[in-house]
Amino acid sequence: MNDARRDELIAIYRDGLLRDTLPFWIKHCVDRQYGGFMMSLDRDGTVLDTDKGVWQQGRFTWLLGELYNNVEPRDEWLELAKHGARFLDEHCFDPTDGRMWFHVTREGQPIRKRRYAFSESFAAIAYGELFKATGDEQYADKAKRTFQRFIDHNLNPQGVEPKLTSIRPTRGIGFPMITIATAQELRQSIGLLDANEWIDRSLDDIRRFHIKVDLQCVMETVSPTGEIIDHFDGRTLNPGHAIEGAWFIMHEGKLRRDASLIQTGCQMLDWMWQRGWDEECGGVLYFVDLNGLPVQEYWHDMKFWWPQNETIVATLLAYELTGDKKYADWHRLVHDWAYAHFPYKEFGEWFGYLHRDGRISSRLKGNLWKGPFHMPRMQLTCWQLLAATSK
Amino acid sequence: MNDARRDELIAIYRDGLLRDTLPFWIKHCVDRQYGGFMMSLDRDGTVLDTDKGVWQQGRFTWLLGELYNNVEPRDEWLELAKHGARFLDEHCFDPTDGRMWFHVTREGQPIRKRRYAFSESFAAIAYGELFKATGDEQYADKAKRTFQRFIDHNLNPQGVEPKLTSIRPTRGIGFPMITIATAQELRQSIGLLDANEWIDRSLDDIRRFHIKVDLQCVMETVSPTGEIIDHFDGRTLNPGHAIEGAWFIMHEGKLRRDASLIQTGCQMLDWMWQRGWDEECGGVLYFVDLNGLPVQEYWHDMKFWWPQNETIVATLLAYELTGDKKYADWHRLVHDWAYAHFPYKEFGEWFGYLHRDGRISSRLKGNLWKGPFHMPRMQLTCWQLLAATSK
Repeated sequence: MNDARRDELIAIYRDGLLRDTLPFWIKHCVDRQYGGFMMSLDRDGTVLDTDKGVWQQGRFTWLLGELYNNVEPRDEWLELAKHGARFLDEHCFDPTDGRMWFHVTREGQPIRKRRYAFSESFAAIAYGELFKATGDEQYADKAKRTFQRFIDHNLNPQGVEPKLTSIRPTRGIGFPMITIATAQELRQSIGLLDANEWIDRSLDDIRRFHIKVDLQCVMETVSPTGEIIDHFDGRTLNPGHAIEGAWFIMHEGKLRRDASLIQTGCQMLDWMWQRGWDEECGGVLYFVDLNGLPVQEYWHDMKFWWPQNETIVATLLAYELTGDKKYADWHRLVHDWAYAHFPYKEFGEWFGYLHRDGRISSRLKGNLWKGPFHMPRMQLTCWQLLAATSK
Repeated sequence: MNDARRDELIAIYRDGLLRDTLPFWIKHCVDRQYGGFMMSLDRDGTVLDTDKGVWQQGRFTWLLGELYNNVEPRDEWLELAKHGARFLDEHCFDPTDGRMWFHVTREGQPIRKRRYAFSESFAAIAYGELFKATGDEQYADKAKRTFQRFIDHNLNPQGVEPKLTSIRPTRGIGFPMITIATAQELRQSIGLLDANEWIDRSLDDIRRFHIKVDLQCVMETVSPTGEIIDHFDGRTLNPGHAIEGAWFIMHEGKLRRDASLIQTGCQMLDWMWQRGWDEECGGVLYFVDLNGLPVQEYWHDMKFWWPQNETIVATLLAYELTGDKKYADWHRLVHDWAYAHFPYKEFGEWFGYLHRDGRISSRLKGNLWKGPFHMPRMQLTCWQLLAATSK
């Protein structure tokens, strides 16, 4: 990767973040009447559904705080982060059990709580950035408490009817992955004391149960003791998700100067690139089967925005850490494919849902799952990475 | 539709049923070791997942009994229907609450029960055909009891944690539609005494709450009093499902010689054809938005097998009942498109999941949702319809 390409990429990521992604969301999603953010936006930013996804409330609040703390202390960003945190405080917790909702109305009335507790992990990192920005200890307390809720509920769910019987128990990679990313964030924002312990424990789970050297694969779902579950759900791989986990681990290796963690992350990336990169059409596929068999999910071969975002980060980070030209090549492939197909120049931001061949399937810019998170996190992370090594 | 076309279609449906669809499933899905049927099949019939969907156990058992009772009394069909009913009896009911499972292992251990109770409706019609075939009162009792379970659970669910809070209650078209079809089946198989009452009540619900004359639309989901819910889920239409409901209602009108029911069914078909037929690529789309906005489900523009099956039945039945040439034209459009894209000549049966333009998305022949039901029911119904009027 030569200097010209580095400068070009810095401009793409930095300007994309500050002049495109962020203005698009700030202009269209902020609800001045009822608080929080309305993320279900049409291609031009029109609100399609006034309901609010709790993940996105936490994620955008985190992003705004992260930018305030790490890019520049713009009053607008801090004000909006506080605006998001207020809605989380006032409307996103169930007072009867302290857990968070998943989906609320515009006014903040609850529609749905889920069996799992990822709303809590995103709220925790949002509160963490607000502590760092303001020094207000209340935010640090809330960050710690919601992180603990996330951990407790995942390790020992209370008051939820399990989706499946106990006949075929499973273990998913989502919990340890998100634990790593959340603890990394809280370590730098509030100095979470047991962050390293949670990260070590999660790394250990991923290495012991999900990474399969014999299969050259990162399993999304395994038995509690790490065995392959030879049914649709057990064979279904989510390459973009495993690649996201790969860069969380590389990032930890970078911070700790731990070559074995960097190697583990690169290994995960290598295997899941082989399985997920679509040689025929380009882009990272959503689901593939461990043995190349059909998967059961209907949208298996679509190209969603976020697996591309996460693969752009992972390949760039792998290149920066190892200097291996292969990663620069992969980065160029996924970056170029994504930027050729997802952006919508007329109104800004990316589409979220493309067909396998890159044609648009839906003109949605946001919904309960898509909001300002994977894309701006990619833009910020890649910009920072390139800027640090360009000095 | 001239006589030559009628004869051609009779051959396509009859021979397709007896020489293709049925042999494919009988050859590949019957589990002689543990009982029941393994429906998760690859394109060539290889079992991809040994788990058993309870819907499909009931549906195939129903089909086999239906063929025995209405086509010819082949010993093989009756033996296999009993084989299916045995697996339902022995493995598909939860002894702790009497409800049925949704998904069990090959050996019949439970994996998942769902909040709703459609396993029960399919088991009921299966037991009904076995009563008709054998005269064994035990089957009639089981049919009545599982039908009552289906009704009771839908009207007054016990022991399930609701998916959503009570803030925005909804009413779906699935329950009244399946009640009509199930009661129609049980009326002819076991002479269910209150069948007409349940059908009338369901027709009334569909007319009062789901049919919107001002919008020229059949709503999939409305408020309990029939108001439009102006959010993603409330605006999402399922044209193939509404068209399936349309022919259940036309069929009832035909049996009762009730012109207003036939008119209601045709009206539903007219509106939902306009909304669901893909003018650009052909075929019936999976989901569309009431107002032409984006929908939230990722697979909205895919072409699944069953909406095509149901539309083939509905257009043919509408033509037979009204003589309106429009319906013959629509029938030719959907029949020709479906037969041009779904069949897999090498190994038989249809693929289930195509992209919008008709390219294959998955080579699956069956899974928890796809089995020998919509397709052979279409083949049998259309064959019978054409044969009756060709005499």
